[in-house]
Amino acid sequence: MKVRVYVSLKPGVLDPQGRAVHHALEGLGFAGVADVRVGRFIEMDVADDTTDDALDEMCRKLLANMVIENYRIEKLEAA
Amino acid sequence: MKVRVYVSLKPGVLDPQGRAVHHALEGLGFAGVADVRVGRFIEMDVADDTTDDALDEMCRKLLANMVIENYRIEKLEAA
Repeated sequence: MKVRVYVSLKPGVLDPQGRAVHHALEGLGFAGVADVRVGRFIEMDVADDTTDDALDEMCRKLLANMVIENYRIEKLEAA
Repeated sequence: MKVRVYVSLKPGVLDPQGRAVHHALEGLGFAGVADVRVGRFIEMDVADDTTDDALDEMCRKLLANMVIENYRIEKLEAA
């Protein structure tokens, strides 16, 4: 089964990468951009019998830094 | 308007970050993970009159490296 995990910074946590992108967009002449935040996603091909608890544990132990990041798990397909 | 841009490596391009995550998951005892790819997303708050062409240009000029990456633009809300 295909699973996608979205990891983003918690609201309020400073995002220097987003800042840099925002600044670069302005430098390129793109006006009207108010805010930019950057996150990452991890696309995994896992066994069909992988439980939600196991996925949660992967996120908490490795994929996300729970101090400053949130994660969201999305299952793409069953097969 | 909120816009999210998903940037992922093109199929066939080696993903060392995904490899590392895969390896680490196995090291932590998670079995059954067949493949891991890592991508990033950029969440932007842009002016409502931003055209699709402008968004495309942002991606091609800055957000994605068109040689090795694909991007997908998703509009989240109109207001």
